[in-house]
Amino acid sequence: MVKLDFEKTNGLIPAIAQDYQTGEVLMMAYMSEASFEETLKSGKATYWSRSRQKLWKKGETSGHTQQVKEIRVDCDGDTVLLKVDQIGGAACHKGYKSCFFSIVENDELKIVESKVFDPKEVYK
Amino acid sequence: MVKLDFEKTNGLIPAIAQDYQTGEVLMMAYMSEASFEETLKSGKATYWSRSRQKLWKKGETSGHTQQVKEIRVDCDGDTVLLKVDQIGGAACHKGYKSCFFSIVENDELKIVESKVFDPKEVYK
Repeated sequence: MVKLDFEKTNGLIPAIAQDYQTGEVLMMAYMSEASFEETLKSGKATYWSRSRQKLWKKGETSGHTQQVKEIRVDCDGDTVLLKVDQIGGAACHKGYKSCFFSIVENDELKIVESKVFDPKEVYK
Repeated sequence: MVKLDFEKTNGLIPAIAQDYQTGEVLMMAYMSEASFEETLKSGKATYWSRSRQKLWKKGETSGHTQQVKEIRVDCDGDTVLLKVDQIGGAACHKGYKSCFFSIVENDELKIVESKVFDPKEVYK
């Protein structure tokens, strides 16, 4: 059994999701021990929602699940990197493929990606 | 001025460093507002060391600095993605290019990368 260090950060560790083909970083969320185990068991990325304080099966509302292709753990055992197949092509609840759709340029944030879906259509 | 949400997570936000050419995720660390500003100003990745409780200019001991090529911010403004040129070729203090050198396989952690440097030689 793979043991991660959930103690250091009060039970939640950062989990980075990356497109397993393109290497694009899609999002960063948190995992509890239960969500890590559910991810291992189901093969679908499962996080811990800090706002809703519950297990968050990514894509359960939008259908945009993440099929886990590979799980990496960092040198300290307190951060996880998921290589995923992003179903529906978009990880971000704002409709973009990646949550990192803005860059810092001339001291301002500038959106440099296009939406894959319209959030109003998906989250009715 | 780009304002990030440092309040939600007690003054520290996660920062992911990614190789700007290959897309490889190198490491995840934390940034205080001061380290984010120092990163912007200097063009070199600067984090907050939770263990040492001080500004951490990445590479100040090893020489393996990270030249920042692009900074992305996520949809909630509370996570940063740095696209960097990793000087010396290795981000991990254990001598690997990436801190994510282990994969979960058959319920165990397996090292799948090779060391770029010997930590005993670099951290004397």
